[in-house]
Amino acid sequence: MPQRPIITLTTDFGWNDHFVGTMKGVILDIVPDAEIVDISHAVQAFDVLDGALTIAQAYSYFPPATVHLVVVDPGVGTARRPILVSSERHHFVAPDNGVLSLIYAREERLHVRHITSEHYFLQPVSNTFHGRDIFAPCAAYLAKRVDSDKFGEEIIDFVRFQAPRPKPTDANTIRGVVLKVDRFGNLVTNITPQDVPALFQADPPAFKITVGKREITEIHPNYAGGAPNEVFAILGSMGYLEIAANRAAAAQLTSAGKGSEVNISLLGAAAAGQGQ
Amino acid sequence: MPQRPIITLTTDFGWNDHFVGTMKGVILDIVPDAEIVDISHAVQAFDVLDGALTIAQAYSYFPPATVHLVVVDPGVGTARRPILVSSERHHFVAPDNGVLSLIYAREERLHVRHITSEHYFLQPVSNTFHGRDIFAPCAAYLAKRVDSDKFGEEIIDFVRFQAPRPKPTDANTIRGVVLKVDRFGNLVTNITPQDVPALFQADPPAFKITVGKREITEIHPNYAGGAPNEVFAILGSMGYLEIAANRAAAAQLTSAGKGSEVNISLLGAAAAGQGQ
Amino acid sequence: MPQRPIITLTTDFGWNDHFVGTMKGVILDIVPDAEIVDISHAVQAFDVLDGALTIAQAYSYFPPATVHLVVVDPGVGTARRPILVSSERHHFVAPDNGVLSLIYAREERLHVRHITSEHYFLQPVSNTFHGRDIFAPCAAYLAKRVDSDKFGEEIIDFVRFQAPRPKPTDANTIRGVVLKVDRFGNLVTNITPQDVPALFQADPPAFKITVGKREITEIHPNYAGGAPNEVFAILGSMGYLEIAANRAAAAQLTSAGKGSEVNISLLGAAAAGQGQ
Repeated sequence: MPQRPIITLTTDFGWNDHFVGTMKGVILDIVPDAEIVDISHAVQAFDVLDGALTIAQAYSYFPPATVHLVVVDPGVGTARRPILVSSERHHFVAPDNGVLSLIYAREERLHVRHITSEHYFLQPVSNTFHGRDIFAPCAAYLAKRVDSDKFGEEIIDFVRFQAPRPKPTDANTIRGVVLKVDRFGNLVTNITPQDVPALFQADPPAFKITVGKREITEIHPNYAGGAPNEVFAILGSMGYLEIAANRAAAAQLTSAGKGSEVNISLLGAAAAGQGQ
Repeated sequence: MPQRPIITLTTDFGWNDHFVGTMKGVILDIVPDAEIVDISHAVQAFDVLDGALTIAQAYSYFPPATVHLVVVDPGVGTARRPILVSSERHHFVAPDNGVLSLIYAREERLHVRHITSEHYFLQPVSNTFHGRDIFAPCAAYLAKRVDSDKFGEEIIDFVRFQAPRPKPTDANTIRGVVLKVDRFGNLVTNITPQDVPALFQADPPAFKITVGKREITEIHPNYAGGAPNEVFAILGSMGYLEIAANRAAAAQLTSAGKGSEVNISLLGAAAAGQGQ
Repeated sequence: MPQRPIITLTTDFGWNDHFVGTMKGVILDIVPDAEIVDISHAVQAFDVLDGALTIAQAYSYFPPATVHLVVVDPGVGTARRPILVSSERHHFVAPDNGVLSLIYAREERLHVRHITSEHYFLQPVSNTFHGRDIFAPCAAYLAKRVDSDKFGEEIIDFVRFQAPRPKPTDANTIRGVVLKVDRFGNLVTNITPQDVPALFQADPPAFKITVGKREITEIHPNYAGGAPNEVFAILGSMGYLEIAANRAAAAQLTSAGKGSEVNISLLGAAAAGQGQ
């Protein structure tokens, strides 16, 4: 266990304003030896699913006892609850709007608490910046080793959503969706090896993927695999099928983006072996 | 008082170049145990007022003895002075161009010094990057607890500007301006509760706010209060009246932006109670 | 030598995804007391030269024993090697694609090793995110003072490129190129005082610089030197000739950008003194 408390930040606050700096000030005033780590402040504004994907990809790599602060909070100031979620290794502080849904899906033993202990809040609490007034100070006190049961009662009716799942459309075809476009223009889909095992075999059968205005018939093991302007499939580091291009933005080459449909068809006899 | 020195950075350097990393290197080479905290590097280029707003919103949350480095410096290499400003809790290192004006307005007891002790500079001093050659090393030595009076003589003729203030245009109307557009598209105005107390009462009188191409007649306690595409008023966390929309960018819906006029009229009999 | 290990990050990963946060988690899980410093994550996607310029400008300011992690890696998952480069003061961990070329050019005594010790890798190693699986953990173990010779054998056939150099086109003219446009719109060229010493004299001869659609005949000692909309030459903090404007973007005023040609002619008798 690290000597030094670690707090990560994942928000949709961007870097153009004082929001992030202010939260860091609040944290350091409570726990001056904290190491504060920016995961991302470029979650799309108000986009709870995008926040959920971001923290879900990064959290597990951090050391035990890390406190993850996740603020994507379009309902700030309403009745939505602030929560504290504790897994065996980590704590999470966030609004109860589903932004931790992918954590709930991945972690076996979780305790979810409704944060009600106002003496950990920065007073007076505004209606518009709970990142500063509630989430940051609670994360700081947690990092300072205040017991999680001091923050409020356990709840079981916390908000969770299912990330969109791919669906078979006929015996040989599955339809998924683009979850996000990454910085390189790769289209990250919601399709995993469990959904189409045949596609990820060492010697996959013939297939056709349609996305945007392109048809894709190749899968490569790395991004450098394709010819110039070729668009291909690849298993990305997030564990999802991605649509990519070699040193180019697949999003642009396909004219597809977040929310675009992705259809995969296994062709000919090979389709029979597809484990849907 | 924290054991570990804390230095915050607020600049218009962006993240696309080596500027920020270079300053951090200079700091860590002098004070390797410093905690360096990015407040923002996305202050609008050359925009001293935008820098003043950013640091003014964030600084007070940091622990005692924090050193705030603020570099928005269109006059780099000219006769404008480097200064060190000490309040009761914090130090500020910046060019003397008014970027600390809102600190001067908020802090009672301040000492402002013209930094002249060149042995704290990184030599040779360039004409184009005092962030690296003057401000970063001076902030580092301050964080290392070098006494502030070692850096130069106190001055009283430092540069300060008044942030633009709203003005009454008739008995029932006040005219303000949009100071900035935040990451969510909220229009942050220069109007505070002191300027129009009636508007911020529990039960405000009828009013009309015009900004850009929209008329606004509602004030809500939180961002989630409005109907889709409704533009409304709200008291933001910066202490200013904001023009906002629920999960949408008010800047876009109003076609207004930084510098746009904001007119508030109190309507009917209620106007009489307005304390202008 | 600092007590606390320092690791810098220079990547083309942007801030919109989990990539940077994930690497930081990997590092802190191995060396929890590391200070992780972002130099830039906005290197242009896939642009090895841009990455080389960024790290070359910043690295030397950091304290001894700093580990610089540089991940601009369009060839991830191919046969390109991961390398560890040690100078007298610093370590560098990067793909062997030339991204450290400017370090090779500036440092006298270097040891370059092919990283092959897979027990320092995060297993299983993906084909698509060696930043997470190879570079971050190796940087962390280096920061933890694992000896560099534990990571693999020295090599001498590492990849290096020459940054583009300016060339004389006739006795009085030299042609260079814009290496990058910085955050302020300054055009950073590849021309140094060594290339045109006369231009950088205290009293330079008459000259004409053409870039984009503008002719430039003035050189100023600082960015504030020019009249409104004047475009002028200046010696920038990177040691290169820049084309700049006072509080305005020279890139826009000249309609020039990265890769644009820059021609410098020394005029009249003065040209004779030019040391080409």
